[in-house]
Amino acid sequence: MPPENPIGDKAAITGVGYTPITRNSGVSVASLAFEACGNAIKDAGLTPQDIDGVITYSPANDTISVRDVQTGFGMTNNQWNCDISGGGTQSCSSIAQAAMVIASGLCNHVLAFRAMNGRTGVRMGGMGGLGRGSSQTAGGSRQWVSPFGFGGAPQSYAMMARKHMATYGTTQEHLGNIAVTLRANAQHNERAIMRSPITLEDYHNSRWVAEPFHLLDCCQETDAGCAMVISRADLAKSMPHPPAYIMSFAYGGGPGINTELDKYADFTTMFPKFIAPGLFARAGITPEDVDVAEIYDAFTFTVLCQVEDFGFCEKGEGGPFIAEGNIAPTGKIPVGTHGGLLSEGYIHGFNNVAEAVSQVRGDAGVRQIPNVEIALASGFGGNMGSALLLHR
Amino acid sequence: MPPENPIGDKAAITGVGYTPITRNSGVSVASLAFEACGNAIKDAGLTPQDIDGVITYSPANDTISVRDVQTGFGMTNNQWNCDISGGGTQSCSSIAQAAMVIASGLCNHVLAFRAMNGRTGVRMGGMGGLGRGSSQTAGGSRQWVSPFGFGGAPQSYAMMARKHMATYGTTQEHLGNIAVTLRANAQHNERAIMRSPITLEDYHNSRWVAEPFHLLDCCQETDAGCAMVISRADLAKSMPHPPAYIMSFAYGGGPGINTELDKYADFTTMFPKFIAPGLFARAGITPEDVDVAEIYDAFTFTVLCQVEDFGFCEKGEGGPFIAEGNIAPTGKIPVGTHGGLLSEGYIHGFNNVAEAVSQVRGDAGVRQIPNVEIALASGFGGNMGSALLLHR
Repeated sequence: MPPENPIGDKAAITGVGYTPITRNSGVSVASLAFEACGNAIKDAGLTPQDIDGVITYSPANDTISVRDVQTGFGMTNNQWNCDISGGGTQSCSSIAQAAMVIASGLCNHVLAFRAMNGRTGVRMGGMGGLGRGSSQTAGGSRQWVSPFGFGGAPQSYAMMARKHMATYGTTQEHLGNIAVTLRANAQHNERAIMRSPITLEDYHNSRWVAEPFHLLDCCQETDAGCAMVISRADLAKSMPHPPAYIMSFAYGGGPGINTELDKYADFTTMFPKFIAPGLFARAGITPEDVDVAEIYDAFTFTVLCQVEDFGFCEKGEGGPFIAEGNIAPTGKIPVGTHGGLLSEGYIHGFNNVAEAVSQVRGDAGVRQIPNVEIALASGFGGNMGSALLLHR
Repeated sequence: MPPENPIGDKAAITGVGYTPITRNSGVSVASLAFEACGNAIKDAGLTPQDIDGVITYSPANDTISVRDVQTGFGMTNNQWNCDISGGGTQSCSSIAQAAMVIASGLCNHVLAFRAMNGRTGVRMGGMGGLGRGSSQTAGGSRQWVSPFGFGGAPQSYAMMARKHMATYGTTQEHLGNIAVTLRANAQHNERAIMRSPITLEDYHNSRWVAEPFHLLDCCQETDAGCAMVISRADLAKSMPHPPAYIMSFAYGGGPGINTELDKYADFTTMFPKFIAPGLFARAGITPEDVDVAEIYDAFTFTVLCQVEDFGFCEKGEGGPFIAEGNIAPTGKIPVGTHGGLLSEGYIHGFNNVAEAVSQVRGDAGVRQIPNVEIALASGFGGNMGSALLLHR
């Protein structure tokens, strides 16, 4: 008997909206949020008055409140709000929260968004003071490591990559394959900020950020907004686009990589090790059933590691698996079909979820993977992460 | 047929913990959080390893992250986290989120907490820069009103109180009755920071904060933590204390009182007008069935207004209703049995929810209301609010 999965197929993503992705939006985060949200509501065939819940996430107070979005749109039917203080992990858990609110009977149509001037405003890539969710505040756990130059995201994941190389023979070229593959995908995506193809040579020649991460191992920092509408499954059936039903969701992870190195028994694994079994079991599927995986690609290595830890290949085999072309559009498990955070832009992972929706809808145009029935999306921050399975 | 209520009785509050409530804790917010959370886990008869989800809320980044709490306790089984950026509204919605996570099959035991040095750290009562949730950040909606001296909580609710007086003949003495009643209740509560009885004369003699609010119309600002464990209802049955089952929940409100005065059709009502019908309908009860109401009492007026808007008396009759003793322990609907935020202390409303649990358990000692079957708790911020119905 499959395990209990009360949120399974109770809700679906029914609307997707973006702003342009730029290096200098020239407008406020509020403007980005309204533009993306308005586009998502329109895409769902709804009006703001149909929205009865709003959710967003940010680790840095760099966005606007859901209340201000409701006020700006004149929404008067509000049954649920949540401003989540959090990072990439919340790109999937914000959608899951919407699904739970819907499954719980409180809302019909929940709007979720992430808007940020991630290039001209608060930058996520540095060592500096993000908000509470990042543990980087005074008194937060990063106080113990930041003074030693360890604490920003590149440093943290670079160290994991180095350990993976030492343990499994993963090479610099393995990481480079990921950068090249996702950039190739971005050529077919008009939204992508980086569309010029790159070679492995370009990769090796790009400057170091934190060894073994070159610049081209690291995702973009961009100004943009992305929004989605999550609806009751029974209502979704008669909405304009094919619904992307939320099959299952999982959240979790191991001890913090920044602060508990001594407890981190296996420094070469990421959160999917902890959550993938439940994620697939609740959906009643296996990794082989997934047609496309929009994996949170803050860094090339985090793609490699998640491909292993979600079970798309054996542990330690990620490098060769990817070198054989298996995450390319024609491979066993296409990843980052839009170019990902590495080449489309960084909307804190929300654009990866949105691309998963597009692939499930079948409206991804020239970058569409044929016959997508099931898509996975993931997001993480620190060593916590979350994932969604969507189906057509 | 009653309306759908999918979260009804799926979860129960099974553990409650506090720190002492003081004017100067002398310790960090982290210490307060760990003390309160540890007490709640112990009260539930659990260990930290049993906790598989953690939720907190704060409008001001004045607390610690759920991740740091998990790290500190060495919790390794994490299926859900949420650092909510929000204020008093979240005192009930954080509990509701826990109930939804449980109803959705993700967690067995969720820990929720609010810890704050609200007196010696970030103070909520002022006009200054709270976080994103409060719309007080630069670019937030309060930029339009704060320069004119309108924007802190006392100013906002004072204006509503004034309008209520003009419309319904509510008097200063009506407000004073509330302060005197809740202080009398606090005498029986060893946790309460203000236990010396007050008279109406004391009330009238206390200094103005924002007319018609005297000092004694305004809640405390204190240093403290409060935590609760929310558990699967089937597990709750065999836990140490009588479970406080979560019957129903509602969230919502009207246009923002700070920023949309023109749209605020009825300036004398609060959020329960919008949410009470659904709250009671989903639980299958009426206001007459509620035995005790731990109403969010940031100000005396907010008690009066909610007593009306939840339907405990007719609209506009709150003043006389309260003057007749109806919110006292022997009245029709006892309110603030612990002294409330006005006299016990201000843990951002979480202590009101905790008192509702205590009344449902029947362990409130000398302040216990006899035969409590159903308790209401409410919380709000701005003009959004939420409420819970708990039952024995």
